[in-house]
Amino acid sequence: MLAMKHPSLLLPRIALLPLLVGALAAASPPSKPLAPSEIVARAPPSAWAEVPAEDLMVIDLDSHQRVVIALAPDFAPVHIANIRRLVRAGWFGGITINRVQDNYVTQWGDVTEKKPLPADVAAHPPAEYDRPLRGLAFHPMGYRDAYAARTGHVGGWPVASDGERAWLTHCYGMVGVGRNLAPDTGTGAELYAVIGHAPRHLDRNITTVGRVLAGMEALTALPRGTEALGVYKEGFPRPAIVTARLAADMPAAERPRYEVMRSDGIDFANWVSARANRKDDFFIRPAGAVDICNAMPPVRAISIGK
Amino acid sequence: MLAMKHPSLLLPRIALLPLLVGALAAASPPSKPLAPSEIVARAPPSAWAEVPAEDLMVIDLDSHQRVVIALAPDFAPVHIANIRRLVRAGWFGGITINRVQDNYVTQWGDVTEKKPLPADVAAHPPAEYDRPLRGLAFHPMGYRDAYAARTGHVGGWPVASDGERAWLTHCYGMVGVGRNLAPDTGTGAELYAVIGHAPRHLDRNITTVGRVLAGMEALTALPRGTEALGVYKEGFPRPAIVTARLAADMPAAERPRYEVMRSDGIDFANWVSARANRKDDFFIRPAGAVDICNAMPPVRAISIGK
Repeated sequence: MLAMKHPSLLLPRIALLPLLVGALAAASPPSKPLAPSEIVARAPPSAWAEVPAEDLMVIDLDSHQRVVIALAPDFAPVHIANIRRLVRAGWFGGITINRVQDNYVTQWGDVTEKKPLPADVAAHPPAEYDRPLRGLAFHPMGYRDAYAARTGHVGGWPVASDGERAWLTHCYGMVGVGRNLAPDTGTGAELYAVIGHAPRHLDRNITTVGRVLAGMEALTALPRGTEALGVYKEGFPRPAIVTARLAADMPAAERPRYEVMRSDGIDFANWVSARANRKDDFFIRPAGAVDICNAMPPVRAISIGK
Repeated sequence: MLAMKHPSLLLPRIALLPLLVGALAAASPPSKPLAPSEIVARAPPSAWAEVPAEDLMVIDLDSHQRVVIALAPDFAPVHIANIRRLVRAGWFGGITINRVQDNYVTQWGDVTEKKPLPADVAAHPPAEYDRPLRGLAFHPMGYRDAYAARTGHVGGWPVASDGERAWLTHCYGMVGVGRNLAPDTGTGAELYAVIGHAPRHLDRNITTVGRVLAGMEALTALPRGTEALGVYKEGFPRPAIVTARLAADMPAAERPRYEVMRSDGIDFANWVSARANRKDDFFIRPAGAVDICNAMPPVRAISIGK
């Protein structure tokens, strides 16, 4: 009973879920379909694109954890110009995480409501909830989506479209701009990251500005707030940002550097297909489908920086 | 700039996301469409069904946190018979959480691989990955799904179907049975809960046995494991189960008691529709759609027990 079928593993009965299979299959005959993790591991350098240092927001928390966010200026240029100005003004120093709502979002901002914004920050940016599809190199996945007419990828970003407009999808790890009721769009001074099942009903209702590439644990392995909406109770020791910087402003040798798999290559297409049609030994019945939030482009660190 | 539009709130700029609107809308004229949270708050007692005490697994951790899981015997009777036997034998006492993989699962089981199972536990249960749709009171949602021909609810459970077979969907908070490679199906002694975006590709590949009704924080606000698959490194202080009990075996006055909204009532249908068509003040463009994992039936505690 409960025989150890993989005795070489430290924890055979624990290591049961699909990622394991990638490791096992690495020793398999080459005729076998590659697991998604193998496709990633074998992808050549040309399959990857480095995130520009100007688009990499590096947040160091007082927990000594680091969160690295890739910004998406093609989708929210005005908000991202604001965020860059806030970062460069040192505005995020001392800003706290104030809300952790289970299966929803972790949100940070100025709890005092009194910290003045730098003068060059647009107080009322336009709505950047979506943008024209035209002008984007959109690579449709070709699978059905519960929310949008089509989904796919643009330059390493998860995107949905109705054929005319395009928008970033609210997937796990995506970052959006907190706002008040319409028509206020928020400034970028208050941000949140998705920490649960994709709240896709927020798509086109909020400006989405980026994706957490590293450090999700610092945002999700946190006590949930006990007040309405997961807000931390007054007096709760809120995690605080020590510094937020753009990688471009750090000494070159200290910058974190990340690559995201390109959306326009054969390796990525194969990876999406393998995600949809899992044929690893573990899988009995491949889904034949994958939703956009289970196809978040692979990320790898060139350097985690200093 | 950044005027406090909701000065009665402690954290106006934080309290930006949809659940807020429920609270605000409570003071709105009755002609306004109800927010999902209002529909839940106003649902009569007949809209709810209590989870039988025999189906409620109550796990107390050494962190002094409690996790309450509803079991789904209509979908995995043999595995759930096993789980009840393991619980009643006290088998889960001392079992540890060994794996926390970000955006995937938290998994617990016998790290020693040596703890004998009670004699009456089936060592090789049949695959209970799906079952006949026939015999289930299936209430389709009527919205498109990325993975299945149809999705809907059965007795407060999220369900997908191809018209002939039906299965529980791998949504945030759902509980499954860890297993080795096929044709092993696991026994129920090793369980995991989904802590990220729904890994629907696991549907019909693993036996799904329940749903965490309370205490998700105890499973997801944990350090992620640093080894492959999110397994905790040897020596890491793993959270441990002190006791696991069925509510039915606790003194009546001490039992936790939970209700799940019934799938067959008008309140639930209205709630699903409101989830798909958010018309609260916050929403500018209702999605017109909702996926099964964003329509997890509402839960409420009658008593959190002792």
